[in-house]
Formats: sequence, C-alpha cells, structure tokens
Amino acid sequence: MSNTASTGTANTSLIARYRTVRGDSETLCAPLATEDYVLQSIPEVSPPKWHLAHTSWFFETFLLQPYVEGYRPFDAAYAYLFNSYYDSVGAQFPRTQRGLLSRPTVVEVMRYRSYVDSAIERLLMQPPVAAGDELARRLVMGLHHEQQHQELLLTDIKYNFGRHPQHPSYRRDLPCSTSTAAVVALQWHAFAGGIYEIGARSDGSTFAFDNEYPRHAVLLQPFRLASRLVTNRDYLAFVEAGGYQQPEFWMSDGWATCRQQQWRHPLYWRAPESSSDEWQQFTLSGIRPLRLEEPVSHVSYYEADAYARWAGLRLPTEQEWEVAAHHTLSSDRPLRGNLRASGWLQPQPAQPTDQLQQLIGDVWEWTASPYSAYPGYQRAAGAFGEYNGKFMSNQLVLRGGSCFTPPDHIRIGYRNFFYPHDRWQMSGIRLAADQMS
Amino acid sequence: MSNTASTGTANTSLIARYRTVRGDSETLCAPLATEDYVLQSIPEVSPPKWHLAHTSWFFETFLLQPYVEGYRPFDAAYAYLFNSYYDSVGAQFPRTQRGLLSRPTVVEVMRYRSYVDSAIERLLMQPPVAAGDELARRLVMGLHHEQQHQELLLTDIKYNFGRHPQHPSYRRDLPCSTSTAAVVALQWHAFAGGIYEIGARSDGSTFAFDNEYPRHAVLLQPFRLASRLVTNRDYLAFVEAGGYQQPEFWMSDGWATCRQQQWRHPLYWRAPESSSDEWQQFTLSGIRPLRLEEPVSHVSYYEADAYARWAGLRLPTEQEWEVAAHHTLSSDRPLRGNLRASGWLQPQPAQPTDQLQQLIGDVWEWTASPYSAYPGYQRAAGAFGEYNGKFMSNQLVLRGGSCFTPPDHIRIGYRNFFYPHDRWQMSGIRLAADQMS
Amino acid sequence: MSNTASTGTANTSLIARYRTVRGDSETLCAPLATEDYVLQSIPEVSPPKWHLAHTSWFFETFLLQPYVEGYRPFDAAYAYLFNSYYDSVGAQFPRTQRGLLSRPTVVEVMRYRSYVDSAIERLLMQPPVAAGDELARRLVMGLHHEQQHQELLLTDIKYNFGRHPQHPSYRRDLPCSTSTAAVVALQWHAFAGGIYEIGARSDGSTFAFDNEYPRHAVLLQPFRLASRLVTNRDYLAFVEAGGYQQPEFWMSDGWATCRQQQWRHPLYWRAPESSSDEWQQFTLSGIRPLRLEEPVSHVSYYEADAYARWAGLRLPTEQEWEVAAHHTLSSDRPLRGNLRASGWLQPQPAQPTDQLQQLIGDVWEWTASPYSAYPGYQRAAGAFGEYNGKFMSNQLVLRGGSCFTPPDHIRIGYRNFFYPHDRWQMSGIRLAADQMS
Amino acid sequence: MSNTASTGTANTSLIARYRTVRGDSETLCAPLATEDYVLQSIPEVSPPKWHLAHTSWFFETFLLQPYVEGYRPFDAAYAYLFNSYYDSVGAQFPRTQRGLLSRPTVVEVMRYRSYVDSAIERLLMQPPVAAGDELARRLVMGLHHEQQHQELLLTDIKYNFGRHPQHPSYRRDLPCSTSTAAVVALQWHAFAGGIYEIGARSDGSTFAFDNEYPRHAVLLQPFRLASRLVTNRDYLAFVEAGGYQQPEFWMSDGWATCRQQQWRHPLYWRAPESSSDEWQQFTLSGIRPLRLEEPVSHVSYYEADAYARWAGLRLPTEQEWEVAAHHTLSSDRPLRGNLRASGWLQPQPAQPTDQLQQLIGDVWEWTASPYSAYPGYQRAAGAFGEYNGKFMSNQLVLRGGSCFTPPDHIRIGYRNFFYPHDRWQMSGIRLAADQMS
Repeated sequence: MSNTASTGTANTSLIARYRTVRGDSETLCAPLATEDYVLQSIPEVSPPKWHLAHTSWFFETFLLQPYVEGYRPFDAAYAYLFNSYYDSVGAQFPRTQRGLLSRPTVVEVMRYRSYVDSAIERLLMQPPVAAGDELARRLVMGLHHEQQHQELLLTDIKYNFGRHPQHPSYRRDLPCSTSTAAVVALQWHAFAGGIYEIGARSDGSTFAFDNEYPRHAVLLQPFRLASRLVTNRDYLAFVEAGGYQQPEFWMSDGWATCRQQQWRHPLYWRAPESSSDEWQQFTLSGIRPLRLEEPVSHVSYYEADAYARWAGLRLPTEQEWEVAAHHTLSSDRPLRGNLRASGWLQPQPAQPTDQLQQLIGDVWEWTASPYSAYPGYQRAAGAFGEYNGKFMSNQLVLRGGSCFTPPDHIRIGYRNFFYPHDRWQMSGIRLAADQMS
Repeated sequence: MSNTASTGTANTSLIARYRTVRGDSETLCAPLATEDYVLQSIPEVSPPKWHLAHTSWFFETFLLQPYVEGYRPFDAAYAYLFNSYYDSVGAQFPRTQRGLLSRPTVVEVMRYRSYVDSAIERLLMQPPVAAGDELARRLVMGLHHEQQHQELLLTDIKYNFGRHPQHPSYRRDLPCSTSTAAVVALQWHAFAGGIYEIGARSDGSTFAFDNEYPRHAVLLQPFRLASRLVTNRDYLAFVEAGGYQQPEFWMSDGWATCRQQQWRHPLYWRAPESSSDEWQQFTLSGIRPLRLEEPVSHVSYYEADAYARWAGLRLPTEQEWEVAAHHTLSSDRPLRGNLRASGWLQPQPAQPTDQLQQLIGDVWEWTASPYSAYPGYQRAAGAFGEYNGKFMSNQLVLRGGSCFTPPDHIRIGYRNFFYPHDRWQMSGIRLAADQMS
Repeated sequence: MSNTASTGTANTSLIARYRTVRGDSETLCAPLATEDYVLQSIPEVSPPKWHLAHTSWFFETFLLQPYVEGYRPFDAAYAYLFNSYYDSVGAQFPRTQRGLLSRPTVVEVMRYRSYVDSAIERLLMQPPVAAGDELARRLVMGLHHEQQHQELLLTDIKYNFGRHPQHPSYRRDLPCSTSTAAVVALQWHAFAGGIYEIGARSDGSTFAFDNEYPRHAVLLQPFRLASRLVTNRDYLAFVEAGGYQQPEFWMSDGWATCRQQQWRHPLYWRAPESSSDEWQQFTLSGIRPLRLEEPVSHVSYYEADAYARWAGLRLPTEQEWEVAAHHTLSSDRPLRGNLRASGWLQPQPAQPTDQLQQLIGDVWEWTASPYSAYPGYQRAAGAFGEYNGKFMSNQLVLRGGSCFTPPDHIRIGYRNFFYPHDRWQMSGIRLAADQMS
Repeated sequence: MSNTASTGTANTSLIARYRTVRGDSETLCAPLATEDYVLQSIPEVSPPKWHLAHTSWFFETFLLQPYVEGYRPFDAAYAYLFNSYYDSVGAQFPRTQRGLLSRPTVVEVMRYRSYVDSAIERLLMQPPVAAGDELARRLVMGLHHEQQHQELLLTDIKYNFGRHPQHPSYRRDLPCSTSTAAVVALQWHAFAGGIYEIGARSDGSTFAFDNEYPRHAVLLQPFRLASRLVTNRDYLAFVEAGGYQQPEFWMSDGWATCRQQQWRHPLYWRAPESSSDEWQQFTLSGIRPLRLEEPVSHVSYYEADAYARWAGLRLPTEQEWEVAAHHTLSSDRPLRGNLRASGWLQPQPAQPTDQLQQLIGDVWEWTASPYSAYPGYQRAAGAFGEYNGKFMSNQLVLRGGSCFTPPDHIRIGYRNFFYPHDRWQMSGIRLAADQMS
C-alpha cells in the first residue's frame, strides 16, 4: 500500500516529464509541412513521421505490452513498420525503405502518439506492483530514447532540406547573429598523467546507457586540450591550403572517401562562385554567410582527423575528454552550454576567455576513440541489449552534445557514436596534444 | 479580325476541353492523402505531385512563355524542378531525386495549376494573331501530354501502393466483379499478306505524335492474330509448368533479368502460401483473388515473349497489329473498349464471341517491334523533337491503350514504348502466329 | 557404299579446311606471352585461352560426343568450364569470372585442342553412316563458330592491351603506312524504292546462320548510301564541334551512357595533351598518330547514330545495306575487301573512286536496325537454337565484316549484332539518307 | 675508414639475410604455373607477379634511388606500376586493376628482381658513408616488408585457387596428417590486473614497425585467456546451433555482412551435400576432410566475435594478449610455433597440455582492439610514415603470426591489422574472459 502510494508520488513527476518530452517531439515538427514528414533522402535519414511513430512503438513495446494486461495495440502492423533494429522483438521493415511509407499519414501517427500517451499515463497512475522499479527504469529509458530521436529529427530535417534544390528554411525565426564575433585565441589546458576513473557510477544516482558502464580506472599519459572548438576560420585555412587535395593528411580510407564523394569542404559549406563572393553555409534558417568564428560543424571523423594532422596535432581520446570535462565542469546538473534549449540550433562562437569552454553543446566532438566496450561491459538483458552493444564496431565516439541536444539528455559520460564518414550529424572538432614534458 | 473571331469560336471548345483534361488530373488524385503525393518508390515512378506540376510546366513553357507578352512565371525555380527531359529548354532536376521534393507542397502545386490555367484561358480568349494555328496545335499537344501523365499517375500510384507493406487501396469503391467469368476459347483471325499502309495521315484530320509519321507502305507476310488477350488462367499454366525456371523460353537478357530480379510470376501476383490458399493480385482496390479469366497484366516484354515461345507462338509486330486493328475497328471515333472511362481500372474478361476483341483498352499489348523510326521519320522541330525521337533505342512498341487510358487519348496508330524489363505498366499479351499456307 | 565413298571424298576437303581454321586460331595467338592468355579486362572480353578451349569444347560437344561411340572427353570438367551460354547443354562457369581460370594452363589447352583435332579427323575419315549430312553441317557450323572467335580473339587482345598502362603491341611487324592518304570525297549512291528479296537462300548453296533465314521480300523506300565509310577526319570534326557535349544529337540512353562513361572521343583515340601535339590512336601495333583518312573505328552505335544526326543524315537499315551490297558486289565468292587476310588488321583509307566501296571489311558497319527475327524465322533445333535466337533483344545489326574477319567467313547476308554501347568491336559508320524525290 | 670496415662486416651478414629472404619469395612461387602469377580474383588479392615486382620496387625506391649515385632504374614505368600506396612517392596504378598487368611477364619480373638484387648487393658492399645506419635500417625494413608479402603470397594464392572451380593444389606434397588428433580440453589461464608495459623498446635491440612504438604503460583488469585456439570442432557446434542464422550473437554490421555475403560457415569450409557426407575444407593441398581438432581458420572478425558471444565469452584485447604472451614465452628469440618453416602451411591441433599454447603461429588471432595509435605514437618520417599510420581506422589488430609467417618475421609485439569482414587471411580465434573475482 505504502509502496503504491510512494510510487504514485514518484510517478506524478514521471508523468510530467513524460508529457514534456513527448510534447517536445511534436513541437519540433510543428514547422514542417505534411509533405516534409515523408522524406528519406539517404538511408541514414529517417522520415520525421517515422521518428514520431517509432518512439511511440518503443513505449508500446517495452512498457504497454508487458505491463498492461490485455493491452490492444493501436495497429498490429506497426510492430513491423516501426521496429528499428530490435531483432529480438521481431522482423523489421527495411530501414532503407522508410521513405515508401506514405501511410500511416501524419494525422494517423499523431493519433497513435495520443493513444500511446493515454495508455502510458494510465499505466503510470496505476502501475502493477509486480513491475517494481523496472517500470520507471524503462520509462526513463524510453524518454532518453525519444530525446535521441529529437536530435535526429533536427539532424534529418536539416539534411532533407539541405538536399532540396531550393534549400527551404526549417524556421525563419531562428536567432541569427550576423555580427562579427571576436577572434578567440586557442589556449592549451594541460592535464597530468595518471590513473583516473571514468564511466557511469552504478549507484543509480543518474541515468546512463549500458555502454557507459562499468565505471573503471584508466591510465592516461599527460595531455593537453584546446580551450575551444576549431572554428570555421581555422578550418577554412585548411581548405585553402589544399587540405582536400593532399593525401598525406588523411587516413587511407578517409582519402578514398574524400575522392569518391568529391568532398571539397564541410557538408553544408557553399564555395564562393567568384572571387567577389563569400563562403556560405546552409543552416536550419536557410543559406547564410559563413560565420568565421563559429565552430566548424558537419565534418566527418576523416575530416576532423585530417585537419588535426595538418595542424600538427591530434584528436583527444574519449578518456582524455571525459577526464578534462569532469575537471572543468561542476558536477551539479544541469550542464550548461549551447544546447537545444538555448534556441540557436547552430553552434556559436567562443567567449573571450582562456577557460576550457564549449565542452557541452555546440557540436558533438569527434574523439580518436573507436567505439568499443569498456572493460567488463555487459550488454543489458533482453532487447535493451541491442540498444548500444551491437554497434560496437566501425564507429567512433563523440562527446559533449550539440546545439541540437536537449539539456536534460546530456551527461559528461555520454558516448555518442557514428561512422567515420558520417557528416550529417552536428559534429565538430576539438584539438588535443601530447603533453610536452 | 474575322481571324480573331473564328479563332475565338474554335477556342471556346478548346477551353472546354482544356478544363476537362486539367480537371481530370486533379480528380484522379482526389483519393490520395497528402503524403501519397510525395512518393517515388523507384526511379521510373514520379511522385503524383510532380506529375501535376510538370504538366503545368509544359503549358507554361511551350504556350505561356512564347505567346504571352511579359508573362511572369509562377515560380522561376520551377523551370528547373519540373522540366522532365527537355535539354533544349534547360537543365533538369535529376529524375531519380524527384522524391526529395517535399516542397512545393501539394497546396502550392495546386495554386500553380490554377495560375497556369487562368493564364491559358486568357491566352485562348485573346490569342495573338501571330500565333496562328501553332497555338492550338501546342495546346492539343499539351493536353495529350497531360493525358499521358494521367495514365502514369494511375500506374505510379499503383506501384507506390503495391510496394507499401500494407498494400493500401487507391479506391475502395471501384467496381469489383468477383463472379466467375466464362472461359472464352482463343480463336485465330487470319490476315492476308501484301502491302498495307500504316501510320498517321498528314491531312491533320486527327492529332498524332511525330513518331506516328509518315504514313507509309509496309509489306506483310500472311499472319494470324489471337481473338482475345492471354488470360491469367493461360499465364498461370506457364507459371505452373515451370516457365520461370526454364531458360529455353527466354531471351538471354530476359533470363538474366528474371534470375537477377527473382521473378516468379507477374508483378502484382501473390503466390498462395499453402496448398489451400489461392493466387491473389494487388489492384487499385487492394489485394483481391486472382480472377482467372481476366487478361494477364503487368508483365514485361521478356515475360510476354517467353510466354509466347512456350506456347509455340509469337508476339505480333506493330505493323500486324495496326493492320488488324484497322480491319476490325470502325474508323469512327471514339474507339470503344475497357478504357479509363469505363471505370474498372482493371482489365476485364473477354466476351463470349469469336470476334477479334480487346484490341482497345484493358492492357497495352507488347509487340515484337523495337521502337524505331518509321521510314522518312523527321523529328519535330525544337523542343518537341525531344518528345519521342530520342527514345528510339532499347525500347519496344506497345499498342491499343489500357484500362488506364483516357478514351479521347487513344488512336489505332498510337505507339507507346517501354523497356523490355518494365513491368509497372498496365501491359499484357496478345498472341500471333505465321499464317499456315 | 557409294554414299560413304562420296562422303569420304567430301570430307577430305573438310579435313583440310578444318586444319586450316583450327591452325589459324593458334597462329593468331602466337605473338602472345603466356600471361596474356589469362586476361579478362572487362566482362565482355574473354581470355584468349578461354577462346581456344571453348571452340574445342564446341566440336567435342556437338560432334564428338554424339557421333563417336564411347568418346571419352579430354577432361570432364571442361563441359562446365568452357560452355559459353548453352543452357540446353548444361550449367556454365560464369562468364564474368573467366579471368579466374589460370588452370588449365596454355599448354594444357593446346593439348586439349590437339586431342579434339585428332578425334575430329578420325571421325571425318570414318563418319558413321547414320550421321548423314548432319555431321558435315555441324562441322561447318563449328568452323564458322571458330572463325567468330578468331575475330573476338583479335578484338579482345586489342582491348586487353589497350587497357594496359604501357599499351603493349600485339605485333610490331604489322604493315603501318604512315603516308598521308588522299582525301576521298563522299559521294552518294541512289537506290530505287520497291520490293527486294533479302536473307539466305534455303537451297543450301552456301552456309548461313539461322538468323539469316528465311529469304523474304521487303519493301524499301528510295534511299541513298554514302560511297565510303566515315573517316577519322570526318569524325574529328564532330568531336571538335562539341558533339560529345551536346545532348541534342544523341539518343536519350546514349547521352546517359556518354556522360556516365565520360566519353569524349572513340575508344582508342588519345587526345593531344597540348596544342602542339596531335591526336593518336591505339592499334594492334601500339600507339600511332591518328591517320585522318582511315575509317573511324571502335565507335558505339550511340556515337554512330549521334554522328549521323549531327551530319543531318542517318544510318542505313540492314535491308538497305544488303540490297546495296548485292547490287554492288559480284555474287561470286570470295568477297574482296580489307579483311584479315590482307594483313593490315587496321581499317584502311578509301580509294580515289566514286564507286560504292569498303562495304566488305575495314569495319563492321552499324545499321539502324534492331536485331530481331526475320518474318517466319525459326530457331534452329536443339542447342544450336541458342546460337543466335536468344540474343534478339537490345542489340543492333552490323554488316560487312572488318579487317579482323576471315575472308571465307563473311557473307553479304551476315548479321552481326552488338549492344548499342559496345565500343570494343572493330565497328564504324556508313551514312545513309532518304532519297530526295 | 674504420666505419666503412665495420659496416662492411655487418653488411656481410645483411647480404646473407637479404639473399635468403629474397630467395624465399621465389621459392614460394616455384609451384606456380606461369598463368597463376597473373590472377587477381578480388581487389584485396594481388597477383603473385605483382608481389614479386612490388617488393623489388621497394628496394629500388627506398635504397637504390637515394643511395646509388646515378642509379638507372630497370624500367621507368615500374615506378608507377609497382607503387602500392605511397602517395608521397608518386601516383599508383590502381590496386583493383593489378590483374590487367599481363606485362611485364614473369620472366621480366624475375629479371627485375635479379637487377635489383645485384645493385643492392653492390650497394651493401660499398655503402656510402653518408648513409650511415639509415641504409641498414632501410634494408631491414625492406626485408620485413618482403616477408609480409611472402605471407600475402601464400594467402592470395590460396584464395585464387580456392575460387577456381577445380580447386587446384598449390603443393600436393604438403604433409597432411589425416590421423585423428586428441581432443584437448580448453583450460583457462588467469592474469592479474595492474599496470603493464607493452610496445616496442626504443633501444633498437630488435626491429619493430613504427606502430609498435612507443613502449608505454597500460592498466589492465584481471583477465583469463584460453589455453588453446578455438578448434573446428568447437566452431562447428556454433554452426550447427544456427549461429549463422541468429542475429543476437552478431555485431550489427557483422550481421548485415553475413546476410549480404550469405555466409554459412568459414570461408574454406564445404558443407556436406548429404547426411552421409562429411565437412571438408579447401587447403593449399586441395580439398580435404575437415580435421576437427585443427584450429578454425579463415574467419572474419565478425565471425570470431559472434562465436565468442555465443560461447558467453569474448575476444582478448591486444594488450591482454601481449601481456600474456610475454608472461608465457621466453623472450629469447626465435619464437617457436607452427610457423611457415614448420612446413605444414595449415594450422595444427593443440598438444595435450594445459600450458598456454599456440600463441605463436597457426593462425593470426583476432583481438577486440581496433587498430589505433599507441599513446604518443609518431608516424615515421617521409614515405615510411605511410606504411602503417594511415591504416589506423576501421581495422582490428591480430596477433601472433600464422602458419604462413616466416619465423624471423614474427615478434610478440607485432600488430597485424585487417578489416572486420576480411576472411581470406589465415585468421582464427582465441577466447578470453573477465576474471571472476
């Protein structure tokens, strides 16, 4: 009895959080025309409509089906259509064909969301005792999952619009500072070598994905980290020095990709057509002049790594990044930075300070670390074990969140991961170096 | 003056026809959800929205731009977005990427249509004297062009829905006879050899595309034509006899395609899952039992040719088909048959008669004739020369129209053409044979 | 008895011819290094070694196996390895992988040839009475088959060497006239319209492939044929006029191929690197200056067709070509022209005469005729039916033989066929036009 | 002077080693037919002839060109043809087209080798004083480079022959124990956690590639290592349990590869065709019964990783492997194991002992470690910097050498690397586990 009561109390705040997160997804889509919800311009991108449905499928599959007796799914076919990659749950409609799904329509997907939301709220109001903590644990997982897809929504919408020959704006009303920002010199922050602890604490104090466990000791050599992100100005020097024409700065696979894809600059940059023109870039508010003091964004790992080598430096490892971030940032939540809530939806210039800045938000920072298991890593049980573990090959870790990341979603220990050729993410560069002894 | 007046009179009926044809395109799209307008499930298919815009671009480019002084296009970007393949007009947005165009939206495309319609009607009311007959000629061309795209609209919508895992219906209210039709025996109609004339008369009495000119004499050997189309029942015998596993019936390229694409039956057939099931087919009203006496449809040339060889027969040449059709059908318009206006949108069983039937409508009939120039063929001048002439390689001629064809669009001499591997068209089979002497 | 005797007599000359043809194949390969026998630089090309083995397999399969009682094949595995495309005979080692067959070695293939040759000669010396005329018929077929592969040997060796970065010579000792030939003006030869007979006579007087039957009447419009082939000089004018950059001269599929393959000139031409350089071409004796009065060679149908359209003319149909050739050439064999026996292995300039010349030899002449069945065509029975009939889609007819063709292999009625994009063949252009009335 | 003398002495042994290593390459090719030298059956494989020439190019480029005044290269074109991937040296003939190089012939390549060998020996006899230690350093590098290609020669020959439909033997005289080996139970060897040193010592005592530097401390958790390699018997249990049909054991990318490539068992295994048959495998002496106690070989990382997960275990990291190997093996050279010199050219069953065995030789052991830079890693200067550093993405480290590895080539610290999908290497599996506390 007391158990139910206390759960009830806890769940009231869970319901509030659930409503907020779920509402955010729909708010993000509000600027879209119905037609925009259908597009899948490359296999990596999913239609906005699909994101909205898939996140609902997640709650339906992992909370409603197991915990609501006699639950009737909104549409039995959705189990197939909106399963992303959970083999243990069942077969999946092929990822590369999501753009074929004109049906269910946006209206139907919104009804699906509403149906699931009502059922979840009922469940949270009267949770089965047998569910115990697992119910709340799964709900929080589902909300973090939805927040990941919110970030993908912005990323994928930007890509779809960027491919459109007319380059539509997602929102014309975005703040858009055209003032020239100050050039902030890059400073170096030194960190001593030694044994550090990284990874998530298992005391349950905060949420973390399974790939952040277990907390473990690492041995680092002395290293230095750049005080700020690499700017468009910095990166333009690499472009203009012929960086995209010189194989010596590139990984062998990166150079092959660069030539095959005919890369000449970051994804959304647009070269001047004549000497009197200037560089431009595509943003969520359309095409704008390239702001030189903004952090460079939408670069692949291959480009980040080549830039660093050209500069005579290197990318940090994820361990170095995490150690530096813990040292720099207050452990008090929430973390501050140019995250989604700041409303820019575009990375912003550094501040005139020597402090280690821009760790949180702005751009996901490529690290030199292949995405692999921490020592002693155990995949979560059941379908949740497919969430992170099966992607631990061929990808690299990115850290710190971006201007697309919800503030209550990011953590210092958060391990994002993408393929080294991926450019459609809001990804950028921070430099590192070995410590001069 | 009298010229203007007389033109005015003529143009009143042109305006009426214009309104009807343009309205038909929109009526055909009425059953679609907004999301359905965006899809391009394979490169051959264009999004419905694109068809609606492109046909308007055609009128804008070939009538409004040259004949309306100071004409302001609805949107300058459309000249690029909705040019299909007219190199002499300008660059084209790549065909394979039409599915990326979430914008302009359906509403904007409808406004575009309305804008063009108003301008065309104004132009027809007060045609510039200098335009002479060319204006009417181009308008008629534009209407036939739009009717071709109406046929593609149905074809492409069917394909998009056929690829969808839930197989949506285009219209649930289509007439759907489930009664068993009579088995109509195949009869042979013999035609004497000799010199015949085929092709369009240049007296201007009726519209024809440039590829139907010039009228010319051909020398035919005696031949026979089957009285009716090949039915699903006929074709099922080929399937069940292992026709898709035996290379000896196939062209070499056809067999390679068959194996590579893993063809086992016509495009929209669905094999029974167990011995107690029956064959089904996907139609514009969804999945229905395979009606055995219906003409087989959505077969490629390779399949049509293999079927004929398996049956010990052959496909007719386009010359044979045209001679037989002229002999059989009254030259009075309009031609009768299961065309779009009959409302089935599905081929229908033959009638219990020995007459040569189903020549017009039901399915486009593959001929054995590669699509090439008639002797003395001249491409039309200017951009219209790109309409037909540049496709005279690698394709084959189909004749007779289908249940998707508008009745006032088809002619006996009409030469449709598709690649031998194409299956998404409403295409079927009529058998022919050499005359036994 | 008399039958056997007379056959014996006939067979003596057959044996002589057999030895000559078989020996020719080996002589053609004599300039090769062992390593050259293994190469398959593109799927269309077969390794020389494979040609030598496959032609032996043909005799083994179609003569020795059926007519020699208890015949023991040289190696049972060859039935699979060296079957080209005869589905009715059995499975085939994939064409695209012939370059993987380092074994059997050249020496083993030569032993195979010798084994087959001995067995064939024994068979011809003592033919089974039951074989009747079929044996001689098959032998002649086999010899023509081998001669086709001799032509492919030269074509494929040229292609393999042309792809090699060092451009090896097949034979340095080839005659190589570097003198400037006279410019021979193009004249027109007019032919009346009317009914003509084409195709092979079924009186058995000369060998012909099944695709040349039956002899039949055709109705032609009046036409004109160019007196000589299009020269490199003629074609260079097209290249320099921007013909490869202007879609209006090209078939739609041809233009797509041109852009995708980045064609800028005929296959073996090499553009000057600076304004003081001259055009060159790769030949079987290596790289040489482009001789301007030589017929252009190694062009695809798409290029031939675009050139003709640019020149305001067209390609002849195969019927026109055959009628003109019969009219021009003595029906007495052998046909004369720059065939393989002339020893140039390269097309040669026209003679200063107004006669219709170069019909036989120099280059295979692309016609406007898709390769399809003559009216009343019947595929040969059994496996021989796969020889020609199953390729009657997507290809075009070429006429007249080339400087790679054995003189006793060519006929006026000979129908060669290749895909419109094929360039590795010794193929060129003769122009035609409608007759001005 | 004394310098020259002492160098001279040292160089005598260098010359001897040079002769041995260079001779080994040719001996390895001795069983080949000339035709076998030309094959490149997949892009990853190079023709044997190419390996022989490229290794000579290496000596010519990095020793003869810089250190022999007025050196005349054997053939100027080889600088292009036989440069593998050294962008800083110059352009390279495309890797995927090496199979097109029928020329230079085998004989010419052997002459090239001889020419280079003479020049190298002259150089070593009279080294320029200015060359200092660098000359010897480069020579040793060149010999290790040649030994790597010797291993590739065996690997590539095996692959070429394995693809051949007749499965030729490389050497029929290889020892081939068909006796049934004892089943050796898998034991676990435990290692304590703590700080260890790994990597190459910079005292120059032994040769190491740049990627093995710098020696550095690592922090390991306690771990266990399996006493022997995974056998065919072990792996067959995975196959028979449906391991290739169950995604839950696979990395996401691995599962996609498994399905796309239709993997059902290790590369060279051949499934029984009927229940009375047995499993077979292709070896360098042709097809033989699958010996169950042999270590499984020719598996990709994806398969190794999936097997380990299925077994409830994991692969070792490269750090764990190196620590265990140092603990187990005498640091005295040479290392012992089933290396090339043992003559089996096939992995051999474990011995009936509980010792940690098979670390050296038999199969390269996949580790869980992505191939990346050691902390503080510096690419070698100049072209040598392209040797290892630019491949540090997308590949994984393998350790321990194989039965194809020359004994004086392997080191405990040797870091081999291949892509996770690569199967044509002699690669196998050793299991690891976290230490139970």
